[in-house]
Amino acid sequence: MRVLGVDPGLTRLGLGVVESDRPSRPRLVAVGVVRTPADDSADVRLGAIAEAFDGWLDEHRPDVVAIERVFARSDVSTIIGTAQASGLTMGLAARRGIPVAMHTPSEVKAAVTGHGRADKKQVTRMVTSILRLDAPPRPADAADALALAITHMWRGATAGASTPGKRKDVLARRAAGRQGSGLTPAQEQWAAALRAADS
Amino acid sequence: MRVLGVDPGLTRLGLGVVESDRPSRPRLVAVGVVRTPADDSADVRLGAIAEAFDGWLDEHRPDVVAIERVFARSDVSTIIGTAQASGLTMGLAARRGIPVAMHTPSEVKAAVTGHGRADKKQVTRMVTSILRLDAPPRPADAADALALAITHMWRGATAGASTPGKRKDVLARRAAGRQGSGLTPAQEQWAAALRAADS
Repeated sequence: MRVLGVDPGLTRLGLGVVESDRPSRPRLVAVGVVRTPADDSADVRLGAIAEAFDGWLDEHRPDVVAIERVFARSDVSTIIGTAQASGLTMGLAARRGIPVAMHTPSEVKAAVTGHGRADKKQVTRMVTSILRLDAPPRPADAADALALAITHMWRGATAGASTPGKRKDVLARRAAGRQGSGLTPAQEQWAAALRAADS
Repeated sequence: MRVLGVDPGLTRLGLGVVESDRPSRPRLVAVGVVRTPADDSADVRLGAIAEAFDGWLDEHRPDVVAIERVFARSDVSTIIGTAQASGLTMGLAARRGIPVAMHTPSEVKAAVTGHGRADKKQVTRMVTSILRLDAPPRPADAADALALAITHMWRGATAGASTPGKRKDVLARRAAGRQGSGLTPAQEQWAAALRAADS
């Protein structure tokens, strides 16, 4: 499975591709950030993001695109631009028939670090460790995109992409109150081992 | 000049194309609404909007796309979907090199009816009158898209599209405090005449 993670934003849009035969051994395929100048108008910036994102879809042919979910209660000063960039990437992926999965920041933190209130440094450190990288991915948006892709790989069976069947599964789980870190016990153990090795 | 107006939304995205040799005599080219089912996931809905919107750009080849500006203080329950749909259409137009102009709802109301707090009925009535239509465009999203296109045609010289030169003009005008309904005196007169004829 190959997952393209997207950390949406107008100024910096993080992109990270992760691939794996076994979910427990994801490996880095590509990581990068699309930057657009703040003094360009929003439409010009979104046009540049559309071009770059379609280029990533062409080059990396992901099986799934995992995008950070934007909430109405997010930072008001950036929410419109973030929602616009997320809508653009969602639409471009979906029109190709690529399933799109949304994950909240706390789901990503929980999946990658084991707790939902981890800070950016902890996420970056865990991503570096999980993907066995020599140096942490920079900037943070790039690490966040990789964390989204890893999260989807691990949570893919429960949370997930835009097929009606899967959505019902998620709703059923929510209704049953079976919420948590989103990791299986084996993944929890493994994450704990990684954390220990990393500290 | 041919202007494609866009009233962005996930459930209904209004589209209206208006053309004119003289701004004072805009005529209807096409009007429609892209509807997506509320029980589809957001990405699938955005993918359908991307396909439909690109189809409109292919068919009608607008010189400018005029989109309603989304504010962070808008209705919280729909703001994310509206911003996502607006970002998608902005990016798709801009990547083709088509200038994109943003107009606020009150700019549109002021331009079309003469006052910024007009209700939807008044906007629809004025659009019907300005374009000399036999019946009002339905639903309201379609009328709003036409109103955006008309607004851009009339305000195009002052507010406007995403070229640095024009942006500077707008800023200079704002700095000089020359704000108002956005209509030239001739347009004001003409709008008043239309209002009188319509009432």
